[in-house]
Amino acid sequence: MANGLTADMARQQDTPARDRLWARYRDEEFANRLSSVPWNDALDTIMSHRSVRTYRDEPLPPGTLELLIAAAQSAATTSNLQAWSVIAVEDPARKARLASFAANQRHIHDAPLLLVFVADLARLRSISDERGHPGIALNYIEAFIFAIADASFAAQNTIVAAESLGLGGCYIGAMRNNPAGVADELALPDEALVIFGMTIGIPDPGIGTDVKPRLPQNVILHRERYAPPDPALLAAYDQRIRDFQAEQNMRVTDWTEQSALRVRDEAALTGREVLRDFLRDRGFSLR
Amino acid sequence: MANGLTADMARQQDTPARDRLWARYRDEEFANRLSSVPWNDALDTIMSHRSVRTYRDEPLPPGTLELLIAAAQSAATTSNLQAWSVIAVEDPARKARLASFAANQRHIHDAPLLLVFVADLARLRSISDERGHPGIALNYIEAFIFAIADASFAAQNTIVAAESLGLGGCYIGAMRNNPAGVADELALPDEALVIFGMTIGIPDPGIGTDVKPRLPQNVILHRERYAPPDPALLAAYDQRIRDFQAEQNMRVTDWTEQSALRVRDEAALTGREVLRDFLRDRGFSLR
Repeated sequence: MANGLTADMARQQDTPARDRLWARYRDEEFANRLSSVPWNDALDTIMSHRSVRTYRDEPLPPGTLELLIAAAQSAATTSNLQAWSVIAVEDPARKARLASFAANQRHIHDAPLLLVFVADLARLRSISDERGHPGIALNYIEAFIFAIADASFAAQNTIVAAESLGLGGCYIGAMRNNPAGVADELALPDEALVIFGMTIGIPDPGIGTDVKPRLPQNVILHRERYAPPDPALLAAYDQRIRDFQAEQNMRVTDWTEQSALRVRDEAALTGREVLRDFLRDRGFSLR
Repeated sequence: MANGLTADMARQQDTPARDRLWARYRDEEFANRLSSVPWNDALDTIMSHRSVRTYRDEPLPPGTLELLIAAAQSAATTSNLQAWSVIAVEDPARKARLASFAANQRHIHDAPLLLVFVADLARLRSISDERGHPGIALNYIEAFIFAIADASFAAQNTIVAAESLGLGGCYIGAMRNNPAGVADELALPDEALVIFGMTIGIPDPGIGTDVKPRLPQNVILHRERYAPPDPALLAAYDQRIRDFQAEQNMRVTDWTEQSALRVRDEAALTGREVLRDFLRDRGFSLR
Protein backbone atom coordinates (compact mmCIF):
# COMPACT_ATOMS: atom_id res chain seq x y z
CA MET A 1 0.00 0.00 0.00
CA ALA A 2 2.66 2.46 1.04
CA ASN A 3 4.66 1.35 -2.00
CA GLY A 4 1.69 1.89 -4.27
CA LEU A 5 1.16 5.39 -2.95
CA THR A 6 4.82 6.26 -3.39
CA ALA A 7 4.76 4.96 -6.94
CA ASP A 8 1.64 7.02 -7.68
CA MET A 9 3.19 10.16 -6.30
CA ALA A 10 6.35 9.53 -8.26
CA ARG A 11 4.45 8.97 -11.46
CA GLN A 12 3.01 12.46 -11.25
CA GLN A 13 6.46 13.92 -11.80
CA ASP A 14 7.91 11.33 -14.15
CA THR A 15 10.77 12.68 -16.20
CA PRO A 16 13.56 10.83 -17.99
CA ALA A 17 15.92 12.16 -15.31
CA ARG A 18 13.75 10.82 -12.51
CA ASP A 19 13.35 7.41 -14.15
CA ARG A 20 17.05 6.94 -14.83
CA LEU A 21 18.09 8.15 -11.39
CA TRP A 22 15.54 5.96 -9.70
CA ALA A 23 16.83 2.88 -11.57
CA ARG A 24 20.42 3.74 -10.67
CA TYR A 25 19.81 4.33 -6.96
CA ARG A 26 16.30 3.06 -6.12
CA ASP A 27 16.00 6.04 -3.82
CA GLU A 28 12.67 7.83 -4.32
CA GLU A 29 13.67 10.95 -2.45
CA PHE A 30 16.87 11.39 -4.44
CA ALA A 31 15.23 10.70 -7.80
CA ASN A 32 12.34 13.07 -7.06
CA ARG A 33 14.61 15.82 -5.83
CA LEU A 34 16.61 15.73 -9.06
CA SER A 35 13.68 15.09 -11.38
CA SER A 36 13.93 18.48 -13.07
CA VAL A 37 17.68 18.66 -13.72
CA PRO A 38 18.66 19.35 -17.35
CA TRP A 39 18.70 16.20 -19.45
CA ASN A 40 20.11 15.19 -22.82
CA ASP A 41 20.85 12.14 -24.94
CA ALA A 42 24.44 11.79 -23.73
CA LEU A 43 23.29 11.73 -20.10
CA ASP A 44 20.56 9.28 -21.00
CA THR A 45 23.09 6.93 -22.61
CA ILE A 46 25.48 7.19 -19.67
CA MET A 47 22.83 6.66 -17.00
CA SER A 48 21.26 3.71 -18.84
CA HIS A 49 24.45 1.65 -18.75
CA ARG A 50 24.18 -2.04 -18.04
CA SER A 51 26.52 -4.87 -18.94
CA VAL A 52 25.36 -6.79 -22.00
CA ARG A 53 26.64 -10.34 -22.32
CA THR A 54 24.27 -11.81 -24.93
CA TYR A 55 24.59 -10.74 -28.53
CA ARG A 56 22.94 -11.40 -31.84
CA ASP A 57 25.02 -13.60 -34.12
CA GLU A 58 25.76 -10.67 -36.46
CA PRO A 59 28.84 -8.64 -37.32
CA LEU A 60 29.06 -5.00 -36.31
CA PRO A 61 28.16 -2.42 -38.97
CA PRO A 62 31.10 -1.26 -41.13
CA GLY A 63 33.11 1.55 -39.57
CA THR A 64 32.02 0.72 -36.03
CA LEU A 65 35.47 -0.24 -34.76
CA GLU A 66 37.11 2.92 -36.13
CA LEU A 67 34.33 5.06 -34.69
CA LEU A 68 34.62 3.47 -31.25
CA ILE A 69 38.39 3.93 -31.22
CA ALA A 70 38.02 7.56 -32.29
CA ALA A 71 35.76 8.00 -29.26
CA ALA A 72 38.36 6.23 -27.11
CA GLN A 73 41.15 8.47 -28.37
CA SER A 74 39.03 11.56 -27.67
CA ALA A 75 39.39 10.94 -23.94
CA ALA A 76 41.95 12.92 -21.99
CA THR A 77 45.35 11.31 -21.50
CA THR A 78 48.11 12.19 -19.07
CA SER A 79 50.15 15.05 -20.57
CA ASN A 80 48.99 13.78 -24.00
CA LEU A 81 51.37 10.84 -23.56
CA GLN A 82 48.63 8.44 -24.76
CA ALA A 83 50.12 5.60 -22.75
CA TRP A 84 47.64 2.97 -23.85
CA SER A 85 46.86 0.62 -26.71
CA VAL A 86 43.90 -1.46 -27.72
CA ILE A 87 43.93 -4.75 -29.59
CA ALA A 88 40.85 -5.62 -31.63
CA VAL A 89 40.36 -9.37 -31.72
CA GLU A 90 37.81 -10.74 -34.19
CA ASP A 91 39.37 -14.11 -35.09
CA PRO A 92 37.17 -16.76 -33.42
CA ALA A 93 40.12 -19.05 -32.69
CA ARG A 94 42.04 -16.27 -30.95
CA LYS A 95 38.94 -15.22 -29.00
CA ALA A 96 38.54 -18.84 -27.90
CA ARG A 97 42.15 -19.03 -26.72
CA LEU A 98 41.78 -15.73 -24.84
CA ALA A 99 38.52 -16.94 -23.30
CA SER A 100 40.39 -20.02 -22.05
CA PHE A 101 42.59 -17.62 -20.03
CA ALA A 102 39.56 -15.71 -18.72
CA ALA A 103 37.29 -18.15 -16.93
CA ASN A 104 35.94 -19.24 -20.34
CA GLN A 105 33.32 -16.51 -20.27
CA ARG A 106 30.84 -17.36 -22.97
CA HIS A 107 30.39 -13.78 -24.19
CA ILE A 108 34.06 -13.68 -25.26
CA HIS A 109 33.26 -16.46 -27.72
CA ASP A 110 29.94 -14.96 -28.76
CA ALA A 111 30.83 -11.29 -29.24
CA PRO A 112 31.84 -10.30 -32.78
CA LEU A 113 34.48 -7.99 -31.29
CA LEU A 114 36.76 -8.32 -28.28
CA LEU A 115 38.73 -5.20 -27.42
CA VAL A 116 41.74 -5.74 -25.18
CA PHE A 117 42.93 -2.59 -23.41
CA VAL A 118 46.61 -2.27 -22.62
CA ALA A 119 48.45 0.00 -20.18
CA ASP A 120 51.25 0.69 -22.63
CA LEU A 121 54.61 2.09 -21.55
CA ALA A 122 56.36 0.13 -24.32
CA ARG A 123 55.57 2.71 -26.99
CA LEU A 124 56.93 5.55 -24.84
CA ARG A 125 60.00 3.45 -24.07
CA SER A 126 60.73 2.92 -27.76
CA ILE A 127 60.15 6.60 -28.58
CA SER A 128 62.38 7.64 -25.70
CA ASP A 129 65.12 5.23 -26.81
CA GLU A 130 64.81 6.42 -30.41
CA ARG A 131 65.23 10.01 -29.26
CA GLY A 132 68.26 9.10 -27.15
CA HIS A 133 66.72 9.97 -23.79
CA PRO A 134 66.97 7.74 -20.69
CA GLY A 135 63.23 7.27 -19.96
CA ILE A 136 63.84 7.02 -16.23
CA ALA A 137 60.36 8.16 -15.18
CA LEU A 138 58.91 5.08 -16.89
CA ASN A 139 60.52 2.96 -14.17
CA TYR A 140 58.29 4.45 -11.47
CA ILE A 141 54.90 3.31 -10.22
CA GLU A 142 53.69 6.79 -11.26
CA ALA A 143 53.97 5.74 -14.93
CA PHE A 144 52.10 2.51 -14.22
CA ILE A 145 49.31 4.53 -12.60
CA PHE A 146 48.90 6.97 -15.48
CA ALA A 147 48.99 4.17 -18.06
CA ILE A 148 46.14 2.37 -16.27
CA ALA A 149 44.20 5.62 -16.02
CA ASP A 150 44.74 6.48 -19.71
CA ALA A 151 43.59 3.00 -20.79
CA SER A 152 40.55 3.26 -18.52
CA PHE A 153 39.49 6.72 -19.75
CA ALA A 154 39.69 5.41 -23.31
CA ALA A 155 37.73 2.26 -22.50
CA GLN A 156 34.96 4.17 -20.78
CA ASN A 157 34.51 6.44 -23.80
CA THR A 158 34.40 3.30 -25.95
CA ILE A 159 31.55 1.71 -24.07
CA VAL A 160 29.52 4.93 -23.85
CA ALA A 161 30.00 5.43 -27.60
CA ALA A 162 28.97 1.83 -28.27
CA GLU A 163 25.85 2.17 -26.14
CA SER A 164 24.93 5.44 -27.87
CA LEU A 165 24.89 3.42 -31.12
CA GLY A 166 22.58 0.78 -29.67
CA LEU A 167 25.39 -1.71 -29.15
CA GLY A 168 26.13 -3.44 -25.87
CA GLY A 169 29.28 -4.51 -24.12
CA CYS A 170 30.88 -5.89 -21.02
CA TYR A 171 34.23 -5.30 -19.35
CA ILE A 172 36.28 -8.47 -18.85
CA GLY A 173 38.41 -8.11 -15.70
CA ALA A 174 39.15 -11.84 -15.98
CA MET A 175 41.57 -10.89 -18.75
CA ARG A 176 44.01 -10.43 -15.81
CA ASN A 177 43.58 -14.05 -14.60
CA ASN A 178 46.46 -15.36 -16.70
CA PRO A 179 48.60 -12.37 -17.63
CA ALA A 180 51.40 -14.42 -19.25
CA GLY A 181 49.04 -16.45 -21.40
CA VAL A 182 47.23 -13.34 -22.58
CA ALA A 183 50.45 -11.39 -23.21
CA ASP A 184 51.95 -14.20 -25.26
CA GLU A 185 48.77 -14.69 -27.30
CA LEU A 186 48.73 -10.98 -28.13
CA ALA A 187 52.51 -10.66 -28.66
CA LEU A 188 52.76 -7.95 -26.01
CA PRO A 189 56.21 -6.42 -25.55
CA ASP A 190 57.76 -5.66 -22.16
CA GLU A 191 56.21 -2.77 -20.21
CA ALA A 192 52.74 -3.42 -21.60
CA LEU A 193 49.99 -4.94 -19.43
CA VAL A 194 46.49 -6.02 -20.38
CA ILE A 195 44.22 -4.21 -17.92
CA PHE A 196 40.89 -5.62 -19.08
CA GLY A 197 39.00 -6.76 -22.13
CA MET A 198 35.65 -5.54 -23.44
CA THR A 199 33.20 -7.52 -25.53
CA ILE A 200 31.08 -5.54 -28.00
CA GLY A 201 28.09 -6.75 -29.97
CA ILE A 202 24.50 -6.12 -30.99
CA PRO A 203 22.41 -6.90 -27.90
CA ASP A 204 20.05 -9.83 -28.11
CA PRO A 205 16.74 -8.05 -27.51
CA GLY A 206 15.26 -11.17 -25.96
CA ILE A 207 17.69 -11.24 -23.06
CA GLY A 208 17.93 -8.10 -20.98
CA THR A 209 19.40 -7.24 -17.64
CA ASP A 210 18.19 -4.28 -15.67
CA VAL A 211 20.29 -1.33 -14.58
CA LYS A 212 22.16 -2.38 -11.46
CA PRO A 213 21.64 -0.10 -8.47
CA ARG A 214 24.74 1.54 -7.07
CA LEU A 215 25.73 2.64 -3.57
CA PRO A 216 23.83 5.66 -2.27
CA GLN A 217 25.54 8.75 -3.58
CA ASN A 218 26.63 9.90 -0.13
CA VAL A 219 28.74 6.77 0.32
CA ILE A 220 30.81 7.54 -2.78
CA LEU A 221 30.64 11.35 -2.72
CA HIS A 222 32.41 13.15 0.12
CA ARG A 223 32.15 16.89 0.77
CA GLU A 224 35.40 18.76 1.38
CA ARG A 225 37.03 15.86 3.26
CA TYR A 226 36.79 12.07 3.21
CA ALA A 227 34.30 10.51 5.62
CA PRO A 228 33.78 6.81 6.39
CA PRO A 229 30.52 5.31 5.10
CA ASP A 230 27.35 5.72 7.14
CA PRO A 231 26.33 2.16 8.20
CA ALA A 232 22.65 3.05 7.64
CA LEU A 233 23.38 3.85 4.00
CA LEU A 234 25.24 0.55 3.55
CA ALA A 235 22.29 -1.29 5.10
CA ALA A 236 19.87 0.49 2.76
CA TYR A 237 22.03 -0.55 -0.18
CA ASP A 238 22.19 -4.15 0.98
CA GLN A 239 18.40 -4.16 0.91
CA ARG A 240 18.20 -2.56 -2.55
CA ILE A 241 20.65 -5.09 -3.96
CA ARG A 242 18.64 -7.93 -2.42
CA ASP A 243 15.48 -6.57 -4.06
CA PHE A 244 17.30 -6.32 -7.39
CA GLN A 245 18.72 -9.84 -7.15
CA ALA A 246 15.29 -11.24 -6.32
CA GLU A 247 13.77 -9.49 -9.37
CA GLN A 248 16.53 -10.85 -11.62
CA ASN A 249 16.24 -14.39 -10.23
CA MET A 250 19.78 -14.16 -8.93
CA ARG A 251 21.03 -15.56 -5.64
CA VAL A 252 20.14 -13.07 -2.91
CA THR A 253 23.07 -11.86 -0.77
CA ASP A 254 23.93 -8.62 0.95
CA TRP A 255 26.30 -6.51 -1.13
CA THR A 256 28.55 -6.02 1.89
CA GLU A 257 28.86 -9.79 2.37
CA GLN A 258 29.31 -10.47 -1.34
CA SER A 259 32.03 -7.82 -1.54
CA ALA A 260 33.84 -9.06 1.55
CA LEU A 261 33.86 -12.56 0.06
CA ARG A 262 35.07 -11.23 -3.28
CA VAL A 263 38.26 -9.94 -1.59
CA ARG A 264 38.50 -12.62 1.10
CA ASP A 265 41.58 -14.63 0.20
CA GLU A 266 44.14 -15.50 -2.42
CA ALA A 267 41.71 -17.93 -4.08
CA ALA A 268 39.40 -14.98 -4.74
CA LEU A 269 42.13 -13.52 -6.96
CA THR A 270 41.56 -16.31 -9.54
CA GLY A 271 45.15 -16.23 -10.76
CA ARG A 272 45.77 -12.50 -10.38
CA GLU A 273 48.00 -13.07 -7.35
CA VAL A 274 50.85 -13.49 -9.86
CA LEU A 275 50.50 -9.97 -11.26
CA ARG A 276 53.33 -8.39 -9.30
CA ASP A 277 55.82 -11.05 -10.30
CA PHE A 278 54.55 -10.95 -13.87
CA LEU A 279 55.01 -7.16 -14.00
CA ARG A 280 58.60 -7.49 -12.80
CA ASP A 281 59.28 -10.25 -15.35
CA ARG A 282 57.96 -8.01 -18.09
CA GLY A 283 60.14 -5.02 -17.33
CA PHE A 284 57.91 -2.89 -15.11
CA SER A 285 60.18 -1.62 -12.33
CA LEU A 286 57.33 -0.03 -10.29
CA ARG A 287 59.94 1.94 -8.37
CA MET B 1 46.88 25.07 -53.78
CA ALA B 2 46.86 21.35 -53.14
CA ASN B 3 45.59 22.09 -49.64
CA GLY B 4 42.86 24.32 -51.02
CA LEU B 5 41.70 21.64 -53.41
CA THR B 6 41.67 19.02 -50.66
CA ALA B 7 39.64 21.33 -48.44
CA ASP B 8 37.16 21.96 -51.31
CA MET B 9 36.73 18.28 -51.94
CA ALA B 10 36.25 17.64 -48.26
CA ARG B 11 33.65 20.37 -47.99
CA GLN B 12 31.47 18.61 -50.51
CA GLN B 13 30.94 15.77 -48.08
CA ASP B 14 30.94 17.69 -44.82
CA THR B 15 29.13 15.88 -42.06
CA PRO B 16 29.38 16.27 -38.29
CA ALA B 17 31.24 12.93 -38.23
CA ARG B 18 33.75 14.10 -40.81
CA ASP B 19 34.35 17.42 -39.04
CA ARG B 20 34.87 15.88 -35.61
CA LEU B 21 37.09 13.10 -36.92
CA TRP B 22 39.15 15.55 -38.93
CA ALA B 23 39.75 17.72 -35.85
CA ARG B 24 40.71 14.68 -33.77
CA TYR B 25 43.18 13.22 -36.29
CA ARG B 26 43.83 15.87 -38.98
CA ASP B 27 43.85 13.01 -41.46
CA GLU B 28 41.70 13.83 -44.52
CA GLU B 29 41.60 10.28 -45.82
CA PHE B 30 40.44 8.87 -42.49
CA ALA B 31 37.84 11.58 -41.90
CA ASN B 32 36.43 11.26 -45.42
CA ARG B 33 36.30 7.50 -45.26
CA LEU B 34 34.24 7.63 -42.07
CA SER B 35 32.15 10.66 -43.03
CA SER B 36 28.90 8.68 -43.29
CA VAL B 37 29.08 6.63 -40.07
CA PRO B 38 26.04 6.94 -37.80
CA TRP B 39 26.21 9.98 -35.56
CA ASN B 40 24.44 11.17 -32.43
CA ASP B 41 24.69 13.74 -29.65
CA ALA B 42 26.61 11.46 -27.29
CA LEU B 43 29.26 10.79 -29.95
CA ASP B 44 29.39 14.47 -30.73
CA THR B 45 30.01 15.32 -27.07
CA ILE B 46 32.68 12.64 -26.71
CA MET B 47 34.54 13.56 -29.89
CA SER B 48 34.46 17.31 -29.12
CA HIS B 49 36.38 16.91 -25.89
CA ARG B 50 39.03 19.45 -25.06
CA SER B 51 40.45 20.48 -21.70
CA VAL B 52 38.90 23.70 -20.39
CA ARG B 53 40.99 25.64 -17.90
CA THR B 54 39.29 29.06 -17.94
CA TYR B 55 35.90 29.46 -16.33
CA ARG B 56 33.33 32.14 -15.77
CA ASP B 57 33.23 33.38 -12.20
CA GLU B 58 29.87 31.73 -11.59
CA PRO B 59 28.66 28.80 -9.51
CA LEU B 60 27.38 25.66 -11.19
CA PRO B 61 23.59 25.32 -11.57
CA PRO B 62 21.85 23.61 -8.64
CA GLY B 63 21.87 19.82 -8.86
CA THR B 64 24.91 19.72 -11.15
CA LEU B 65 27.18 17.94 -8.69
CA GLU B 66 24.61 15.24 -7.91
CA LEU B 67 23.93 14.74 -11.63
CA LEU B 68 27.63 14.41 -12.47
CA ILE B 69 28.17 11.89 -9.68
CA ALA B 70 25.16 9.88 -10.82
CA ALA B 71 26.82 9.73 -14.25
CA ALA B 72 30.07 8.69 -12.59
CA GLN B 73 28.36 5.93 -10.61
CA SER B 74 26.69 4.66 -13.79
CA ALA B 75 30.07 3.51 -15.09
CA ALA B 76 30.99 -0.15 -14.78
CA THR B 77 33.02 -1.12 -11.71
CA THR B 78 35.01 -4.28 -11.06
CA SER B 79 32.58 -6.96 -9.77
CA ASN B 80 30.37 -4.08 -8.55
CA LEU B 81 32.93 -3.49 -5.77
CA GLN B 82 32.79 0.28 -6.45
CA ALA B 83 36.34 0.71 -5.19
CA TRP B 84 36.47 4.47 -5.62
CA SER B 85 35.43 7.68 -3.95
CA VAL B 86 35.21 11.28 -5.03
CA ILE B 87 35.66 14.33 -2.85
CA ALA B 88 33.91 17.51 -3.95
CA VAL B 89 35.91 20.56 -2.87
CA GLU B 90 34.23 23.95 -3.17
CA ASP B 91 35.79 25.82 -0.24
CA PRO B 92 38.18 28.39 -1.78
CA ALA B 93 40.70 28.05 1.06
CA ARG B 94 40.86 24.28 0.67
CA LYS B 95 41.14 24.59 -3.12
CA ALA B 96 44.03 27.00 -2.62
CA ARG B 97 45.81 24.61 -0.27
CA LEU B 98 45.30 21.73 -2.71
CA ALA B 99 46.55 23.92 -5.57
CA SER B 100 49.70 24.58 -3.55
CA PHE B 101 50.37 20.83 -3.70
CA ALA B 102 49.66 20.68 -7.45
CA ALA B 103 52.00 23.10 -9.19
CA ASN B 104 49.68 25.95 -8.20
CA GLN B 105 47.58 25.46 -11.31
CA ARG B 106 45.42 28.55 -11.62
CA HIS B 107 42.31 26.68 -12.73
CA ILE B 108 42.16 24.88 -9.37
CA HIS B 109 41.68 28.28 -7.74
CA ASP B 110 39.29 29.50 -10.42
CA ALA B 111 36.96 26.52 -10.88
CA PRO B 112 33.82 26.56 -8.74
CA LEU B 113 34.21 22.81 -8.24
CA LEU B 114 37.24 20.59 -7.79
CA LEU B 115 36.53 16.86 -7.82
CA VAL B 116 39.23 14.67 -6.33
CA PHE B 117 39.06 11.03 -7.45
CA VAL B 118 40.26 8.38 -5.05
CA ALA B 119 41.26 4.75 -5.64
CA ASP B 120 39.52 3.56 -2.51
CA LEU B 121 40.25 0.19 -0.92
CA ALA B 122 39.58 1.63 2.53
CA ARG B 123 35.81 1.23 2.25
CA LEU B 124 36.15 -2.42 1.19
CA ARG B 125 38.61 -2.98 4.03
CA SER B 126 36.17 -1.61 6.61
CA ILE B 127 33.28 -3.62 5.15
CA SER B 128 35.40 -6.76 5.13
CA ASP B 129 36.50 -6.18 8.74
CA GLU B 130 32.92 -5.48 9.79
CA ARG B 131 31.81 -8.77 8.21
CA GLY B 132 34.63 -10.67 9.94
CA HIS B 133 36.47 -11.67 6.76
CA PRO B 134 40.25 -11.37 6.28
CA GLY B 135 40.30 -9.14 3.13
CA ILE B 136 43.53 -10.72 1.91
CA ALA B 137 42.96 -9.94 -1.78
CA LEU B 138 43.09 -6.23 -0.92
CA ASN B 139 46.81 -6.65 -0.18
CA TYR B 140 47.60 -7.45 -3.82
CA ILE B 141 48.53 -5.13 -6.67
CA GLU B 142 45.44 -6.56 -8.41
CA ALA B 143 43.24 -4.58 -6.02
CA PHE B 144 45.27 -1.43 -6.62
CA ILE B 145 44.78 -1.88 -10.38
CA PHE B 146 41.02 -2.32 -10.22
CA ALA B 147 40.62 0.61 -7.84
CA ILE B 148 42.48 2.89 -10.27
CA ALA B 149 40.38 1.57 -13.16
CA ASP B 150 37.11 2.04 -11.24
CA ALA B 151 38.02 5.62 -10.33
CA SER B 152 39.02 6.34 -13.92
CA PHE B 153 35.83 4.92 -15.47
CA ALA B 154 33.83 7.09 -13.07
CA ALA B 155 35.88 10.19 -13.83
CA GLN B 156 35.55 9.76 -17.57
CA ASN B 157 31.76 9.54 -17.30
CA THR B 158 31.87 12.67 -15.16
CA ILE B 159 33.66 14.78 -17.72
CA VAL B 160 31.54 13.53 -20.63
CA ALA B 161 28.40 14.31 -18.62
CA ALA B 162 29.75 17.76 -17.75
CA GLU B 163 30.56 18.51 -21.37
CA SER B 164 27.12 17.34 -22.49
CA LEU B 165 25.71 20.04 -20.18
CA GLY B 166 27.91 22.75 -21.71
CA LEU B 167 30.34 22.71 -18.80
CA GLY B 168 34.09 22.29 -19.17
CA GLY B 169 36.76 20.58 -17.14
CA CYS B 170 40.32 19.48 -16.87
CA TYR B 171 41.99 16.49 -15.27
CA ILE B 172 44.67 17.39 -12.71
CA GLY B 173 47.39 14.73 -12.67
CA ALA B 174 49.49 17.10 -10.57
CA MET B 175 47.26 16.05 -7.67
CA ARG B 176 49.82 13.22 -7.34
CA ASN B 177 52.78 15.61 -6.91
CA ASN B 178 52.49 15.68 -3.13
CA PRO B 179 50.46 12.65 -2.10
CA ALA B 180 50.96 13.11 1.64
CA GLY B 181 49.96 16.77 1.60
CA VAL B 182 46.83 16.00 -0.41
CA ALA B 183 45.89 12.96 1.69
CA ASP B 184 46.22 14.90 4.93
CA GLU B 185 44.22 17.86 3.61
CA LEU B 186 41.41 15.51 2.57
CA ALA B 187 41.60 13.30 5.69
CA LEU B 188 42.17 10.19 3.59
CA PRO B 189 42.37 6.91 5.50
CA ASP B 190 44.93 4.19 4.77
CA GLU B 191 44.47 2.27 1.52
CA ALA B 192 43.02 5.28 -0.28
CA LEU B 193 45.04 7.13 -2.93
CA VAL B 194 44.17 10.30 -4.82
CA ILE B 195 44.60 9.38 -8.50
CA PHE B 196 43.79 12.77 -10.03
CA GLY B 197 41.67 15.84 -9.61
CA MET B 198 39.22 17.38 -12.05
CA THR B 199 38.21 21.02 -12.23
CA ILE B 200 34.66 21.76 -13.45
CA GLY B 201 33.19 25.10 -14.38
CA ILE B 202 31.27 27.11 -16.94
CA PRO B 203 33.71 27.71 -19.81
CA ASP B 204 34.77 31.28 -20.46
CA PRO B 205 33.49 31.69 -24.03
CA GLY B 206 36.22 34.22 -24.78
CA ILE B 207 39.05 31.77 -24.24
CA GLY B 208 38.90 28.57 -26.26
CA THR B 209 41.36 25.85 -27.04
CA ASP B 210 40.95 23.65 -30.06
CA VAL B 211 40.54 19.90 -30.06
CA LYS B 212 44.00 18.38 -29.71
CA PRO B 213 44.93 15.92 -32.45
CA ARG B 214 45.73 12.41 -31.30
CA LEU B 215 48.06 9.74 -32.63
CA PRO B 216 46.93 8.15 -35.90
CA GLN B 217 44.48 5.43 -35.08
CA ASN B 218 46.75 2.67 -36.33
CA VAL B 219 49.37 3.55 -33.71
CA ILE B 220 46.91 2.95 -30.86
CA LEU B 221 44.72 0.27 -32.46
CA HIS B 222 46.28 -3.11 -33.12
CA ARG B 223 44.57 -5.92 -35.06
CA GLU B 224 44.64 -9.38 -33.51
CA ARG B 225 48.14 -8.95 -32.05
CA TYR B 226 50.26 -6.05 -30.77
CA ALA B 227 52.54 -4.37 -33.31
CA PRO B 228 55.18 -1.70 -32.70
CA PRO B 229 54.36 1.77 -34.07
CA ASP B 230 55.07 2.53 -37.73
CA PRO B 231 57.73 5.30 -37.71
CA ALA B 232 56.02 6.99 -40.67
CA LEU B 233 52.83 7.37 -38.62
CA LEU B 234 54.77 8.84 -35.69
CA ALA B 235 56.44 11.30 -38.09
CA ALA B 236 53.05 12.28 -39.53
CA TYR B 237 51.79 12.91 -36.00
CA ASP B 238 54.84 14.98 -35.07
CA GLN B 239 53.98 17.22 -38.04
CA ARG B 240 50.29 17.46 -37.11
CA ILE B 241 51.16 18.40 -33.53
CA ARG B 242 53.60 21.04 -34.80
CA ASP B 243 50.86 22.51 -36.99
CA PHE B 244 48.47 22.51 -34.04
CA GLN B 245 51.02 24.14 -31.71
CA ALA B 246 51.76 26.84 -34.29
CA GLU B 247 48.03 27.62 -34.65
CA GLN B 248 47.62 27.82 -30.87
CA ASN B 249 50.70 30.02 -30.44
CA MET B 250 52.32 27.31 -28.36
CA ARG B 251 55.99 26.37 -28.44
CA VAL B 252 56.51 24.05 -31.41
CA THR B 253 58.10 20.68 -30.62
CA ASP B 254 57.76 17.19 -32.00
CA TRP B 255 55.41 15.09 -29.92
CA THR B 256 57.97 12.29 -29.80
CA GLU B 257 60.58 14.66 -28.36
CA GLN B 258 58.15 16.28 -25.95
CA SER B 259 57.02 12.86 -24.71
CA ALA B 260 60.57 11.54 -24.31
CA LEU B 261 61.41 14.65 -22.24
CA ARG B 262 58.25 14.23 -20.17
CA VAL B 263 59.53 10.82 -18.97
CA ARG B 264 63.24 11.60 -19.08
CA ASP B 265 64.34 11.61 -15.45
CA GLU B 266 63.33 11.75 -11.84
CA ALA B 267 62.92 15.53 -12.02
CA ALA B 268 60.20 14.98 -14.65
CA LEU B 269 58.18 13.19 -11.95
CA THR B 270 57.64 16.51 -10.09
CA GLY B 271 57.38 14.84 -6.71
CA ARG B 272 55.66 11.65 -7.81
CA GLU B 273 58.84 9.61 -7.31
CA VAL B 274 57.69 9.21 -3.69
CA LEU B 275 54.49 7.39 -4.62
CA ARG B 276 55.71 3.86 -3.95
CA ASP B 277 56.98 4.73 -0.48
CA PHE B 278 53.84 6.74 0.19
CA LEU B 279 51.65 3.79 -0.79
CA ARG B 280 53.53 1.50 1.57
CA ASP B 281 53.27 4.06 4.39
CA ARG B 282 49.53 4.25 3.83
CA GLY B 283 48.85 0.54 4.06
CA PHE B 284 48.90 -0.54 0.41
CA SER B 285 50.83 -3.84 0.37
CA LEU B 286 50.92 -4.12 -3.46
CA ARG B 287 51.82 -7.77 -3.08
